[in-house]
Amino acid sequence: MALDVADLVERARKGQPRAVGRLISLVEDASPALREVMAALAPHSGTSYVVGLTGAPGVGKSTSTSALVAGLRRQGKRVGVLAVDPSSPFSGGALLGDRVRMQEHATDPDVYIRSMASRGHLGGLAWATPQALRVLDAAGFDVILIETVGVGQSEVEIAGLADTTVVLLAPGMGDGIQAAKAGILEIGDVYAVNKADRDGADATVRELGNMLALGERRAPGDWRPPIVRTVAVRNEGIDELIAALDKHRGWLTETGELTRRRHRRVADEIEAIAVTALRERIGDLHGDQRLEALADRVLAGELDPYLAADELVENLV
Amino acid sequence: MALDVADLVERARKGQPRAVGRLISLVEDASPALREVMAALAPHSGTSYVVGLTGAPGVGKSTSTSALVAGLRRQGKRVGVLAVDPSSPFSGGALLGDRVRMQEHATDPDVYIRSMASRGHLGGLAWATPQALRVLDAAGFDVILIETVGVGQSEVEIAGLADTTVVLLAPGMGDGIQAAKAGILEIGDVYAVNKADRDGADATVRELGNMLALGERRAPGDWRPPIVRTVAVRNEGIDELIAALDKHRGWLTETGELTRRRHRRVADEIEAIAVTALRERIGDLHGDQRLEALADRVLAGELDPYLAADELVENLV
Repeated sequence: MALDVADLVERARKGQPRAVGRLISLVEDASPALREVMAALAPHSGTSYVVGLTGAPGVGKSTSTSALVAGLRRQGKRVGVLAVDPSSPFSGGALLGDRVRMQEHATDPDVYIRSMASRGHLGGLAWATPQALRVLDAAGFDVILIETVGVGQSEVEIAGLADTTVVLLAPGMGDGIQAAKAGILEIGDVYAVNKADRDGADATVRELGNMLALGERRAPGDWRPPIVRTVAVRNEGIDELIAALDKHRGWLTETGELTRRRHRRVADEIEAIAVTALRERIGDLHGDQRLEALADRVLAGELDPYLAADELVENLV
Repeated sequence: MALDVADLVERARKGQPRAVGRLISLVEDASPALREVMAALAPHSGTSYVVGLTGAPGVGKSTSTSALVAGLRRQGKRVGVLAVDPSSPFSGGALLGDRVRMQEHATDPDVYIRSMASRGHLGGLAWATPQALRVLDAAGFDVILIETVGVGQSEVEIAGLADTTVVLLAPGMGDGIQAAKAGILEIGDVYAVNKADRDGADATVRELGNMLALGERRAPGDWRPPIVRTVAVRNEGIDELIAALDKHRGWLTETGELTRRRHRRVADEIEAIAVTALRERIGDLHGDQRLEALADRVLAGELDPYLAADELVENLV
């Protein structure tokens, strides 16, 4: 039977999880139907609010995500979750091991959870996540949570995709703040110190507060990222965290920053697709020995890689 | 005074560290002289042996690198070191905090050490490292060590740049092996369990050995990555590690795999430069409102990002 994209999109918009899952698989695998799917989704975009969650391993991201889902459900919101695992570019699947907590939402028809492995070659979250976001957006979820471990580039990428980015920390992570500081101080709209019932929570909140204050070059009216204490495993502080998200959303909306962020996000997405398309054209040349011959000449010291790249590009444009 | 690239290259080849440093700065900053530098370096390439070192934070990478440098110096080798910090795409500089151990080599004219921050936008190590490698190669270093923390994509990228890749582990890293396994099992040519005097070293060696055996789909004659025990802080096991590197180099040379790896590396480098060049052409369009207008139409649901990217690419080719 032929793939009926319009029907799939229709069913996804009615909230059928299998249709949502099928659409994400189609965009994730860069299937031939990808473009058809994207075209069918386009008229139904812009309704979801996208929240990114990131933090070092061990801060309780999965537990916090699950608690946030529960809190948003209490408000009657439909919630989509993308759990992105950037740890292995080799894995084609996704690690579900620590997603057990999510099981509590598995039977809720108004929650959709998807684990995604990021792809190595195409660069971290950049490739499949924006497209999966478009599927969930078109399916009418009120809030989409993207959760990823904060290592390398992934935390920056998630901030580029989200309307509001939550950075999670936990006490007793040793030099965790120190190690991560350069990145996290730039990307967090809201900070949550999870496991706030543990020793050292006060110190972590204080240290983080100091670092945020130090880094501040804010004008009056600018957003000042709040620090929320949570014990996600007992649902403590989760309503406060949701209130902080709502407050940031309000600020984004009032200042026009929401539109600016989304505009920037879409421009980046278009650019990334265009670069991938151009890259594929180069990739096609791999086969016909042209790049191989250029590489041989560079190896022999006859040519530098820039002149070689020039020859490659000349062939394209 | 005008920049005299030929003179700089000449002085770098005579071992003058300031000339080497200046050339790396020129290529790292994508200066206008970049192409001239690359062209001047081209005839002097292919003499250095490139060793990559990677591992999770805390395994003792910096100490191991320093001990390796000392060991290679005892053999009379000239050594270049690139310490790449992928942790912050925002930092323009490089974190030298934990490079203190390297100071012992600071006055040795046959050792050149350079810390590099990776660039966020252009993607991890991909951009500046191959070019810095070319400088050190042309400057005639016998061995170049590239050291980077194994998070996200960086460990894969380092394996793509090195002739031989060393993956460092340490006992007592908890689920470190588990978390990292998908990546490290694919990239290590040699494994070193550092801090081998600590509790749990035997277990780490055993666990790693089992995982390597499990993942094996090797034909007879294929390289089997050895596991070396080191206590880098006391220089223990370093000669054994160097012997393992030599053995791998011998295997690469005999089987012709060295040439194949270098060919692949150069082809990847050419491709990356070509993609960057094409990306810059797209970037030029940012200014003239074209991408902005397309993003507006996507935001309004009139267009999907793929069709928008098509329009962008059409304009180029």
